[in-house]
Amino acid sequence: MLQSLGAKPMMFPTPVWVVGSYDAQGKPNLMTAAWCGICCSKPPCLNVSLRKATYSHGNIIARKAFTLSAPSVSQAREADYVGMVSGRDRDKFQATGLTPQASQVVDAPYAAEFPLVAECRLAQVVELGLHTMFVGEIVDLKADTAVLDAQGRPDMTKLAPFVFAPEVREYFAVGQSIGKAFAIGKSV
Amino acid sequence: MLQSLGAKPMMFPTPVWVVGSYDAQGKPNLMTAAWCGICCSKPPCLNVSLRKATYSHGNIIARKAFTLSAPSVSQAREADYVGMVSGRDRDKFQATGLTPQASQVVDAPYAAEFPLVAECRLAQVVELGLHTMFVGEIVDLKADTAVLDAQGRPDMTKLAPFVFAPEVREYFAVGQSIGKAFAIGKSV
Repeated sequence: MLQSLGAKPMMFPTPVWVVGSYDAQGKPNLMTAAWCGICCSKPPCLNVSLRKATYSHGNIIARKAFTLSAPSVSQAREADYVGMVSGRDRDKFQATGLTPQASQVVDAPYAAEFPLVAECRLAQVVELGLHTMFVGEIVDLKADTAVLDAQGRPDMTKLAPFVFAPEVREYFAVGQSIGKAFAIGKSV
Repeated sequence: MLQSLGAKPMMFPTPVWVVGSYDAQGKPNLMTAAWCGICCSKPPCLNVSLRKATYSHGNIIARKAFTLSAPSVSQAREADYVGMVSGRDRDKFQATGLTPQASQVVDAPYAAEFPLVAECRLAQVVELGLHTMFVGEIVDLKADTAVLDAQGRPDMTKLAPFVFAPEVREYFAVGQSIGKAFAIGKSV
């Protein structure tokens, strides 16, 4: 039986991706986001929503670029940290020991240690309320060669990303394969 | 070492949520989407991107409402099916045996069997290219009482949603908890 939980921003699960951006002085910054996803196949676009109060929000408006990276389970502490403190007060690369890497294709940095990174130029800004949605066109996508499968695509098990439960505020690993898409439904 | 994979719509993982909508004749339809997420906390909003060619796209434009549901692993075959065929040709509720339930708060249906459903009124339409992004304001969120924890919030383990690997086109279960958000990073 379904029970109303009210009008809450709560669907399960969401991604946990890390936004990379430069501030006006060129200081690289990282911030973890869960209000994010893929939003268009052609041109390939990602979306990430940030509160106006965040340091990254101003950075993206000014630089018109950002990166989004998928950290692995082994990097969950670093990802959680960069989602808790502000780049206004801290150098989050220094605090975490992550290595800032300048994108060669957009005006934004990423952490060299994260295994999957999308480099995006700002395509649209959509005001929604508390959050502003930034739509970025993927200029290039890069993956650590260590997480690729035999066909050169990311392998979910090697990548080992994790997801988020909103409101409950907990992270979960991605588990085992349950089947091929556009295939298992044929026998419904 | 990072290797370029080109400009592809590929980040891991994405949600697998099912869109519910009515057509002009009031026939309820379901369609699975992976280009979706939470995009604003206040007002609480979800976003889902659909190709203009889909039946659901026209439905949402006409009815200005949709639902988004998170199916469980045990419902993966039904979710895969409704993502493969078009509501133009088929009654997907009939084909899957899922039960159409009319939302009491928006002009859209959902499948009574899915354990978590967000009922949304269309708030914004953002044209991105091949995909149109629909932003919906959550009017109510409902969960099966069987998947709630002691605090009345969805329990990830009981809900057992699953995620998608784009390009690789494979579904994965959500695995074990790896820690509390806004907590594990304090010891970085």
